[in-house]
Amino acid sequence: MPFPAFCRNNQPMRKPDILTVRNIAEKLATRDAVTALLGPDHGSWTVTEISDGNMNAVFRVASARQSIIAKYAPPYIRVIGESWPFPSSRIAFEQAALTEYHRICPDMVPAIIDYDADAALLVMEDLAGFTVLRRALIEGMALPRLAEQAGQYLAQTLFHTSDLALPTVAKKQLLERFTGNAKLCATTETVIFTGPYWSAPLNKWNPLLDDMVSAIHQDREWHQAAADLNEIFRTRTQSLIHGDLHTGSIMVTPDATRVIDAEWAFHGPMGFDIGALIGNLLIAFCAVPGHGDNRDYADWILQTIEGIWRHFAEAFRQLVLTRRHDGDDALLPARLFDDRAALAFTDRYLAQVLTDSAGFAGAKMTRRVIGISHVEDLEEINDPALRARCERHVLTIARDLVVARNTIRSISDITPLAQRHQP
Amino acid sequence: MPFPAFCRNNQPMRKPDILTVRNIAEKLATRDAVTALLGPDHGSWTVTEISDGNMNAVFRVASARQSIIAKYAPPYIRVIGESWPFPSSRIAFEQAALTEYHRICPDMVPAIIDYDADAALLVMEDLAGFTVLRRALIEGMALPRLAEQAGQYLAQTLFHTSDLALPTVAKKQLLERFTGNAKLCATTETVIFTGPYWSAPLNKWNPLLDDMVSAIHQDREWHQAAADLNEIFRTRTQSLIHGDLHTGSIMVTPDATRVIDAEWAFHGPMGFDIGALIGNLLIAFCAVPGHGDNRDYADWILQTIEGIWRHFAEAFRQLVLTRRHDGDDALLPARLFDDRAALAFTDRYLAQVLTDSAGFAGAKMTRRVIGISHVEDLEEINDPALRARCERHVLTIARDLVVARNTIRSISDITPLAQRHQP
Repeated sequence: MPFPAFCRNNQPMRKPDILTVRNIAEKLATRDAVTALLGPDHGSWTVTEISDGNMNAVFRVASARQSIIAKYAPPYIRVIGESWPFPSSRIAFEQAALTEYHRICPDMVPAIIDYDADAALLVMEDLAGFTVLRRALIEGMALPRLAEQAGQYLAQTLFHTSDLALPTVAKKQLLERFTGNAKLCATTETVIFTGPYWSAPLNKWNPLLDDMVSAIHQDREWHQAAADLNEIFRTRTQSLIHGDLHTGSIMVTPDATRVIDAEWAFHGPMGFDIGALIGNLLIAFCAVPGHGDNRDYADWILQTIEGIWRHFAEAFRQLVLTRRHDGDDALLPARLFDDRAALAFTDRYLAQVLTDSAGFAGAKMTRRVIGISHVEDLEEINDPALRARCERHVLTIARDLVVARNTIRSISDITPLAQRHQP
Repeated sequence: MPFPAFCRNNQPMRKPDILTVRNIAEKLATRDAVTALLGPDHGSWTVTEISDGNMNAVFRVASARQSIIAKYAPPYIRVIGESWPFPSSRIAFEQAALTEYHRICPDMVPAIIDYDADAALLVMEDLAGFTVLRRALIEGMALPRLAEQAGQYLAQTLFHTSDLALPTVAKKQLLERFTGNAKLCATTETVIFTGPYWSAPLNKWNPLLDDMVSAIHQDREWHQAAADLNEIFRTRTQSLIHGDLHTGSIMVTPDATRVIDAEWAFHGPMGFDIGALIGNLLIAFCAVPGHGDNRDYADWILQTIEGIWRHFAEAFRQLVLTRRHDGDDALLPARLFDDRAALAFTDRYLAQVLTDSAGFAGAKMTRRVIGISHVEDLEEINDPALRARCERHVLTIARDLVVARNTIRSISDITPLAQRHQP
């Protein structure tokens, strides 16, 4: 199979190696930025595969001195294999997005050490001591700074890549750099907005949910609302969004937060990132009875959802006041919008973002229970009946968020809804 | 001043000639596609400048055999001159957009005969016998087929370049081709959504409107609504829109309609094209008292506005039923959306497009009375008091359309509003 993306000067090029735990050290040893950190003797390095997501292979490579993370995008979906080809170019978009996010939020995005486009290989700072947020939530880890840090990350990245911060030409140039990531957008659209609502071949669910799945497959109101969200996802180019900001794309310690895995990035609706995070936190909330039923921790998760939104909204408002673009083609020129007027616009804007976030949260929750790709929060609950009870809770909240998202006017409308549906 | 866009192979290139009525025949005589039509003897050709818009120079070039239209984009805004540089690349976007629209709507967009990128020169079919729609409306010309034809044009071009018709990758590739037209987007944003609402240096208005202009400059509710529309214009990439579809961009005969001047094209909100047309028809309606006060003609203009929307909406619904994309990443896959469900989505979608159209119509009407660029419908009314009466009518309708656009649920809500404000 030819790889046209790797051809140059019309010379056919060798198919790049598939990188594995066996040959990646040799590849990395050819990269100066890597040997500068790990030293030259790659025979002494330890390589561990720590792949977690579906798409890519991730390795920790350590020498006596230092360790790094190497992420490799094979020309297919990793968990499926060569039978599902997928463009390796996704790693170029990840590199571009992480670079942009690191510039905006250096304390919350890992630094890139090296990037080899021909090998589809990205080398990053090792987040030693960090845990995947999803795992931390399953284990009931205390994360007192998560709400503030996640809210700040969202405000900074979504504001600084939007029309509020950028002149029109710069905004559209940034947008243009990610437009080629369309295959990943198409995948999101299929697996989130349509796939879960019919008997798509790779869907799966707990058999104890058969009745509910059957009802969902007939639920036209839900399908319509999902189609509205699909249209928003396709057409509302507000910010350079991460595109897959679930709790598996965030690493934490009790004090720190880092966002990783930005290969789905493109200019889309702000609410898709915020909703992904809220939706996955709501899944964690619903899964608490399956992992020891710590009600205080469940309450803390709901408070954290509220806290993330409040920190996000407040930081976003401050950015509008202090950092908004004020050139000739400003969206809110200061000569026309004083602080009060700028905030009036922003509050209306954020109300729409909240509505979108609620809808996208519900859409993401649904697909994790009845679609192609599931999450450990629920999958690791061994008792099928207990798991089904948690999953029904997820789906019940999800339907309200998707179908009635236009009634959500404040973050305080979301969390009581989660409690109200408590099984 | 160097022209980097015209440099190739790193060789500095001669600054291209400014084309005028004196030298354009010589330039055109070097183009095979032109001499094939007009014959080789360019000394015998008649060249007439017929420039009408602000940006470009337009020439009719005729031989004994045939005539053509040549459109040239100087590296500045034509009506202002070299003091306002503007990218000649706009003609490349016009060529790309007209090619796309001609493919979709061959009967309603002139055929392109030749395109010389280095010279910023586009040669098109001569629409002999056609009148600019704005002129036709000032003169009270009967146009019994306008509503149907304009509605069809809007439905075909807006549907076929949207996510309803195109697979995601194709939609985003089309979008990407026009993203570089950002300077023109920025210009639209400034002259329509912010410029009219403060004392921008090049604004002008009838002095008899001083009180009203002063009130508009203080009207925060209006500014807020205009900012909302500005944000929609910047972020809602629904279709490849014409971007400047006023009555000066449409040519008519009693039987036929042609759309020209697509240099502002980019992926934006459908309502911007529909609103431009509705808004400019409403200006023509308000100007009727200044051109003989033919009340039947004024009524016909309002009926035509309703007719355009109804033909557009009905054709769009039919296209959704018969031509929507139904591949893996479809927005409305047939297995999930039968005809009835597809129409339910479409009706909700069109309701939003109508609301947007109303808002954009009002924004376009305002700027033509108190902004930088005015229209003959009003400018040719010699009596300043009579003109002021018509202009106040325009502004009164415009404010309602912008500020109360969310109350517009049917096209029948717009035209009574125009009559209600009759001075």
